[in-house]
Amino acid sequence: MGEFELIRRYFAAAPCAQAAEGVALGIGDDCALLDLPPGEQLAVSTDTLVAGVHFPDACEAFLLGQRALAVSASDLAAMGATPLAFTLALTLPCADEDWLRGFADGLALMAAACGLALVGGDTTRGPLSLTLSVFGRVPRGQALTRSGARPGDLLCVGGSLGDAAGALPLVLRERRAAARIARPLLERYWAPQPQLALGQALRGSATAALDVSDGLLADCGHIARASGVALLVERERLPLSAPLLALLGREAAQACALGGGDDYRLAFTLPPSLLPAFQRDWPELAVIGRVEAGAGVQLLDAQGLSLDLPAGGYQHFGATHD
Amino acid sequence: MGEFELIRRYFAAAPCAQAAEGVALGIGDDCALLDLPPGEQLAVSTDTLVAGVHFPDACEAFLLGQRALAVSASDLAAMGATPLAFTLALTLPCADEDWLRGFADGLALMAAACGLALVGGDTTRGPLSLTLSVFGRVPRGQALTRSGARPGDLLCVGGSLGDAAGALPLVLRERRAAARIARPLLERYWAPQPQLALGQALRGSATAALDVSDGLLADCGHIARASGVALLVERERLPLSAPLLALLGREAAQACALGGGDDYRLAFTLPPSLLPAFQRDWPELAVIGRVEAGAGVQLLDAQGLSLDLPAGGYQHFGATHD
Repeated sequence: MGEFELIRRYFAAAPCAQAAEGVALGIGDDCALLDLPPGEQLAVSTDTLVAGVHFPDACEAFLLGQRALAVSASDLAAMGATPLAFTLALTLPCADEDWLRGFADGLALMAAACGLALVGGDTTRGPLSLTLSVFGRVPRGQALTRSGARPGDLLCVGGSLGDAAGALPLVLRERRAAARIARPLLERYWAPQPQLALGQALRGSATAALDVSDGLLADCGHIARASGVALLVERERLPLSAPLLALLGREAAQACALGGGDDYRLAFTLPPSLLPAFQRDWPELAVIGRVEAGAGVQLLDAQGLSLDLPAGGYQHFGATHD
Repeated sequence: MGEFELIRRYFAAAPCAQAAEGVALGIGDDCALLDLPPGEQLAVSTDTLVAGVHFPDACEAFLLGQRALAVSASDLAAMGATPLAFTLALTLPCADEDWLRGFADGLALMAAACGLALVGGDTTRGPLSLTLSVFGRVPRGQALTRSGARPGDLLCVGGSLGDAAGALPLVLRERRAAARIARPLLERYWAPQPQLALGQALRGSATAALDVSDGLLADCGHIARASGVALLVERERLPLSAPLLALLGREAAQACALGGGDDYRLAFTLPPSLLPAFQRDWPELAVIGRVEAGAGVQLLDAQGLSLDLPAGGYQHFGATHD
């Protein structure tokens, strides 16, 4: 038996690969089989993370496993879907047992937190990269999409923005900070919490939604384009965490919040009448702007005057946006 | 807009990404949405192909696109599932327009042949590799698995074996042959035809099934283990194509049929009473052995005497089994 066959057996025996609701057949046959409750649709998303592009080559395996699954699960949150299962295609230069154990542990922790069962995948030899496909279920016709924002809606986000982008120099060890500042920011980078419960709660209420992964302004552009509306973002209303402000100061923190991806907060549009109920249940929710007739994204200062948009979208760890 | 964003738009506009039955929402949002008819289950399979391991670095993009999707769709055939959709995670060192056009054309041809719609994925920069996830639907409880073979069943395959393995020296240009021999063999390697109709027809009849991808003997081992039975393979009953026999002679052709993967024929077990109906509708179907009580795989000669099993499973293009 080859070392990669051993890896496949290792994952097949992992806790996250065991019996789970909705999984009729897991790892070990030509396909996995999933059950959907009557009246529900399947939500599917696929993401690839490449070493040196989406994460540092030398990063800790545990953190990588945790973060990779969170990034994918966040797409389910953005659709208001209930997590069901995932597949993992892992390409590795060699079979290092310590690395694998760490990676599988990180993966299992996030899988348990999200309610996702590992149902299949592939392990191959090659330069380090991961492709995850996640599956969720959502009542037919109730998925949150990017295309329903209407003039008069409020623009909201599910919590503080910019923390992950602010953490990047710490991740890359280009900068140091006191533990009380560094720890929460690194936590936001390495263990983003997909806002699954918020996404499900927003079904039938939010008119459009996505998870902030390309950077807030770029992602607002996606909603504006898909919905055929203009989105106005008020810079002074961006929710900024205390550690981010302490690390960078207000101006640089705002820049991280506007341009930084990797936060995996939900951004969504909501009729104003529905806001109070959500504010009560989700105290971290922040209104950051509004929807108007028109096109594109505008950034406003405290006086409501239009500001120039910063150039370019979010740069991932590597040099390119891709 | 980066070049990789352009690639994403290129795929989103491809014919295979357009409206299809069962696809409620395709490319362009955080998730795709799939509809399943009441009473059906979703079948999912994920495969990764890495350049230099699963296909030659320098291979034609059109052939790669075609073959990659066929390999994945074959897993749906093995479960008796009806194809629905797929996602493509493509990692590329650079955005070469000619390469992309060729690849997308090959992919689209196989997608149309299989009835698969492209519903999502990712394009990233890095060493060339592909991960495909395919989705199919199958009536609840009727999927073909590896675990139901019973003593007394016949062991069958859906057509000639060993052609793809026999073609490998031609693929690698280590060997030449007359066009009448080379052409059909190369066709079998580059454009395997997933036996989707046969798989669907076998639902409710075959007791176990898979697609031959690791090599016949290795794959028979999977059925034997999952079903808790012994599989007896009769060497003289292996169906060998005329071009393979012409290229290699009988003995080497048999070795290709026993050890070669990449044929993507279905192998399955069938109660003898059901054989005649299938033989009428599938003239290429061949009985190659039988199921007995016990464990493991035995290879028998023309006299029914047990032969030593060849060592090792199928070697893919590269040096390792993985």
